[in-house]
Amino acid sequence: MSLVNGADSQCISPEDRGLLYGDGLFETFAVRDGTPLAWDRHLRRLAHGCGRLGLPQPDAETLRREAAAACNGLPRGILRLTLTRGIGSRGYRPDPEPVATRIFSTHAWPDYPPDLWRVGINLRFCDTPLSRHPGLAGIKHLNRLEQVLARAEWDDPEVHEGLQSDTRGRVVSGTMSNLFVKIAGRWSTPNLDQSGVTGIIRQSLLDGQAAHGIPIAEQTLERSAVPRVQAAFVTNSVIGIWPVRRLGAQELDPDDDCRRLARYLAAQGVVAPGEIAA
Amino acid sequence: MSLVNGADSQCISPEDRGLLYGDGLFETFAVRDGTPLAWDRHLRRLAHGCGRLGLPQPDAETLRREAAAACNGLPRGILRLTLTRGIGSRGYRPDPEPVATRIFSTHAWPDYPPDLWRVGINLRFCDTPLSRHPGLAGIKHLNRLEQVLARAEWDDPEVHEGLQSDTRGRVVSGTMSNLFVKIAGRWSTPNLDQSGVTGIIRQSLLDGQAAHGIPIAEQTLERSAVPRVQAAFVTNSVIGIWPVRRLGAQELDPDDDCRRLARYLAAQGVVAPGEIAA
Repeated sequence: MSLVNGADSQCISPEDRGLLYGDGLFETFAVRDGTPLAWDRHLRRLAHGCGRLGLPQPDAETLRREAAAACNGLPRGILRLTLTRGIGSRGYRPDPEPVATRIFSTHAWPDYPPDLWRVGINLRFCDTPLSRHPGLAGIKHLNRLEQVLARAEWDDPEVHEGLQSDTRGRVVSGTMSNLFVKIAGRWSTPNLDQSGVTGIIRQSLLDGQAAHGIPIAEQTLERSAVPRVQAAFVTNSVIGIWPVRRLGAQELDPDDDCRRLARYLAAQGVVAPGEIAA
Repeated sequence: MSLVNGADSQCISPEDRGLLYGDGLFETFAVRDGTPLAWDRHLRRLAHGCGRLGLPQPDAETLRREAAAACNGLPRGILRLTLTRGIGSRGYRPDPEPVATRIFSTHAWPDYPPDLWRVGINLRFCDTPLSRHPGLAGIKHLNRLEQVLARAEWDDPEVHEGLQSDTRGRVVSGTMSNLFVKIAGRWSTPNLDQSGVTGIIRQSLLDGQAAHGIPIAEQTLERSAVPRVQAAFVTNSVIGIWPVRRLGAQELDPDDDCRRLARYLAAQGVVAPGEIAA
């Protein structure tokens, strides 16, 4: 189902700037027992994105009410919020006082095999690069062709995610996930000041270092450093943490830190207990 | 009005990938007497974009019929065609056999002052860069936030267009137009293998060099070369050619080549006679 500006609807105007230009943002929430997880974190990222794009800050109470109506007691699923600059006058120029379009839609929980949490995933390297753009990096905007083209590179169901490097050859992220790697015994995640999306799980792990006790640096990951990766995992709001068992041609060893971090996330309530490495 | 997959409609699905990810392409035609100008050139660019994005090639006869229905004898106006990957399963992965969404919409002719053709425009430099991405450069895809953010930089009605450089500082194009500059007596236009859109007018001028007799090179334009620009113009399918009378802080002299090229375009039927420099 979908709610458009609060009303049950399957209809977006062909003049909506979300469609015309990808002029907007989105958030993807895991839903458990009718509740979108990590709500405050998602809303903070959305607000930050609105600031970047010059979109009006949405009213938090309206969003909360509409999210609850869209979830409607859904025991387990996904909620997507899309926020666009709405309908404006023709051309790229944004109206000075735009009236945003809010779209909430719910979706079935994806039927990923439990082994992806328990044993880990097969992670490939994609050829499609991520462009570098400091003004668009980090936020979850609607311009996602780079991810679509990367995800179109493979259809082997035994490959679960693809890594993208930026146009200078630095490894940035998965097509739908953030990457964490352990090199020389130290965890890090690529910094996202030029490309990529600052994921909710990624930020939870970075913010929680004092609590979970595993130091994680934000730093550049050159492609040339990949052979030295000892362990890795990817994160997003739906999957939580997936350990990586194969990175390109490299077999990686299981690492207990993945389980420890997954338990931390579950305790924080940003993923559901079912999504921790068993 | 708008036609969605051939039917009069104001309704796009909230699940359309054009909205979810900007997963699609568009074309903007000038319309005169019910006819979209430069139809074949637009369709060739669209087909090229479909190849890049892995979209099915649209049926030319269907598009022609729907364009005629949308224009419906419109004496003077704009026709936009948006082609998206349609509705697919959730996530970035494109369906192997997508069913595209076709949207034709018509719009009023913009009321630009005639002096923009006769005297020329005031062209500013934008701070928002264009990212570099060889796989997306050149095609007219729906991921246009870089243009939206650039166009949001000014609201002075005496500034008519803004130039964008790529993230390496090379001048690429206007927010909605291609750029041509004369340096040391020779015309050139920035090459678009990393950023920008290969405009229909731009390509007509490049293809027509033997006919119009004015050589035009495709070459990199470093920002440092801008002070040596003697004359300039910008192009798109709606405006045809606008001479540049002011480039940033530089006053430029009128150049007869602009008028000559505008007459060539009118003779080719890619712009209407009203849009030549008088």
